[in-house]
Amino acid sequence: MLSVDKALKIVMENVRTIERIDSVGLDSANGRVLAEDIFSDIDMPPFNRSSMDGYAVISDDISNVPAELSIIEEIPAGHFPKKRIVRGTTAKIMTGAPVPEGADAVVMVENTESLKDSKVKILSKAKKGENISNRGEDVKKGDKILSRGILLRCQEISILATVGKYKVKVLSQPRVSILATGTELVEPDKIPSIGQIRNSNSYSLFAQCQSIGIKPEYLGIAIDDEADLREKIKKGLNYDVFLISGGISMGDYDFVPSILRDMDVKIEFEKVAIKPGKPVLFGTKDNTIVFGLPGNPVSTMVIYDIFVKPVLKKMSGDSVNFNFTGKAMIEKDFSRKKAERQEYIPVRVTRSGMEAGAMPVEFHGSADMMAITKANGLLIIPVGIDKINKGDICNVMWFSSTDPSYMPS
Amino acid sequence: MLSVDKALKIVMENVRTIERIDSVGLDSANGRVLAEDIFSDIDMPPFNRSSMDGYAVISDDISNVPAELSIIEEIPAGHFPKKRIVRGTTAKIMTGAPVPEGADAVVMVENTESLKDSKVKILSKAKKGENISNRGEDVKKGDKILSRGILLRCQEISILATVGKYKVKVLSQPRVSILATGTELVEPDKIPSIGQIRNSNSYSLFAQCQSIGIKPEYLGIAIDDEADLREKIKKGLNYDVFLISGGISMGDYDFVPSILRDMDVKIEFEKVAIKPGKPVLFGTKDNTIVFGLPGNPVSTMVIYDIFVKPVLKKMSGDSVNFNFTGKAMIEKDFSRKKAERQEYIPVRVTRSGMEAGAMPVEFHGSADMMAITKANGLLIIPVGIDKINKGDICNVMWFSSTDPSYMPS
Repeated sequence: MLSVDKALKIVMENVRTIERIDSVGLDSANGRVLAEDIFSDIDMPPFNRSSMDGYAVISDDISNVPAELSIIEEIPAGHFPKKRIVRGTTAKIMTGAPVPEGADAVVMVENTESLKDSKVKILSKAKKGENISNRGEDVKKGDKILSRGILLRCQEISILATVGKYKVKVLSQPRVSILATGTELVEPDKIPSIGQIRNSNSYSLFAQCQSIGIKPEYLGIAIDDEADLREKIKKGLNYDVFLISGGISMGDYDFVPSILRDMDVKIEFEKVAIKPGKPVLFGTKDNTIVFGLPGNPVSTMVIYDIFVKPVLKKMSGDSVNFNFTGKAMIEKDFSRKKAERQEYIPVRVTRSGMEAGAMPVEFHGSADMMAITKANGLLIIPVGIDKINKGDICNVMWFSSTDPSYMPS
Repeated sequence: MLSVDKALKIVMENVRTIERIDSVGLDSANGRVLAEDIFSDIDMPPFNRSSMDGYAVISDDISNVPAELSIIEEIPAGHFPKKRIVRGTTAKIMTGAPVPEGADAVVMVENTESLKDSKVKILSKAKKGENISNRGEDVKKGDKILSRGILLRCQEISILATVGKYKVKVLSQPRVSILATGTELVEPDKIPSIGQIRNSNSYSLFAQCQSIGIKPEYLGIAIDDEADLREKIKKGLNYDVFLISGGISMGDYDFVPSILRDMDVKIEFEKVAIKPGKPVLFGTKDNTIVFGLPGNPVSTMVIYDIFVKPVLKKMSGDSVNFNFTGKAMIEKDFSRKKAERQEYIPVRVTRSGMEAGAMPVEFHGSADMMAITKANGLLIIPVGIDKINKGDICNVMWFSSTDPSYMPS
């Protein structure tokens, strides 16, 4: 059976970054990927800037302290000095304000004493350049300061504001559609009859996409009837990514793969050596990526993290692997009969200093979402390993949809 | 000077979880805090459920294999069986479908062979209960399944859908206002004159709040003029949290603290032994939390992570400390002249297995946001430490606004 690593490789080889571009305001740019190079329209700092509240001086003037100087001007931030500092004079200056001509240092206000008659006593010497940030010291006008392809975080947004990019080109995010399949499914606002269950996969997938800033389109439930499935699948194939949950295992009523083939979807695989989630379908049609996700809720949630999230990230232009993984010491013996699949065991990961521990939660299989509410990550058991002893070091992956520091109560 | 820990303690003691409640749909519940206990309106599973595609059998009937059985019915998921299984008979059953009366095990389709005339050859024995999840095994109707106060992640949203909670009560998020102060400031869409700079703090704060799902109200720039400041501060005090950047250091033009006092804001502190960000004001008025943040961009960004984010999280009902921290080995000697403040040094944190390394980026002080674009976290240097040698183990904090696995290019 196809290994998780090989399957992921096939998936990622078939995914291209979306080429559409959006132009967004700074209040909508967080978490998006920059689609243009950004050049500075200003020097940074834009002038020789005081980095302290204090007095602008000629350093040679205060080589003996205390020294008395005459205050010839006050320069608040946002005001430009009108006078030149000459021997025996100073200007009171605020943090961020332009240093006046003539001055070559700023003495912190804490090292001065106000006197009468617009005079000040300077209590400490200053080196040339002290407490002054020179014009263009960080960035020169015309410098490229941010490159196409980077992720915009709060710090990059701060830079964009500083250089006047109040509208910025970012890569479009993938348009995602979600379809649930199964005659047994009813929507959450309905009372299930005997044999029916409420659709939950569409809503957990929706939340997982939302966690990375993508708002999918929900196409509803397709009953296990070929005509209905066909119509809804046709609709779903109009999106960049089409997520179908259910309808892909070996059951005779699972029409999804054959309809996809009929519609010229090139199916790359239908099964992966993974638990939970063995029956997972991946295919492409033109620029559309199609996932057939297992009907079981836990399987769907795990498969999203392993396969779908990296796809959405790559399509958004956001590089590499975004599942936060690490090593942890397992806190309970684990064994399994078969070791043919890479298995993901729900655990509570606790961290202390450089150490992490992973305690498996009680888990009744891939329909048992209740167990997953007690977990914050997954322990990864590779193919071929059938036993792990308490104290062994294993790989863990935090759930992608929440902060890795989160610990469920 | 007040230590970071003591300041944070003062802050957190003054913060209460917001008592307002929103009722939201499942598509808007992700990341919110549950404001009601949730009870199940169904058993889970809702019936004895097949966990495999296969054949529902009486286990005693196949104590000798191979055994031939007559297929009396097919049961897809979502359909209820009409017939009872008696000796010599079986029903073909799909994953998730109800197990028919009489049957006490399901044999996987992989361990069977189809025969003519609606017969099947069973190739392996089954234990009583094999591949059957019993009704109510995970949850019984009426059980409390989710408690008020928990964070809703994709798994909890799946549970809510399953028990029919398509509208759910969640705690309201804090209403946040942002005000920039400073005569030197112009908005990003303006060309700064000599001595002016563009406002960037409001936009980085906006992005930081957005990263935890909060959309603040931006009140614009108040020039350093008392009347204008007064009017805008009055407006800001109508929110749950009021963030003011600039206007709080020792400069004579910094009116903010005195205006806040005039308006009956109880100021708890105005200075913390932290670098960057020493001049940080914290106060309260009735149920409003007020922060005066330093005007320097890097200081504002860091102070948000240290003080503001925990406040917003606690107000949202989301427990403890949400900054992801860990230990890392410093990769370059570090020294400083004064060790009076807890210092946060921008670093690139790289992880490999259970080890992490932290490399300080070149940094020209708290206006140098360009340096921060190269970093993904902060190295924490405690008070009293003036030297760290390459190879020492230190505490690091990942930036709160991005995935901790993110590494800037």
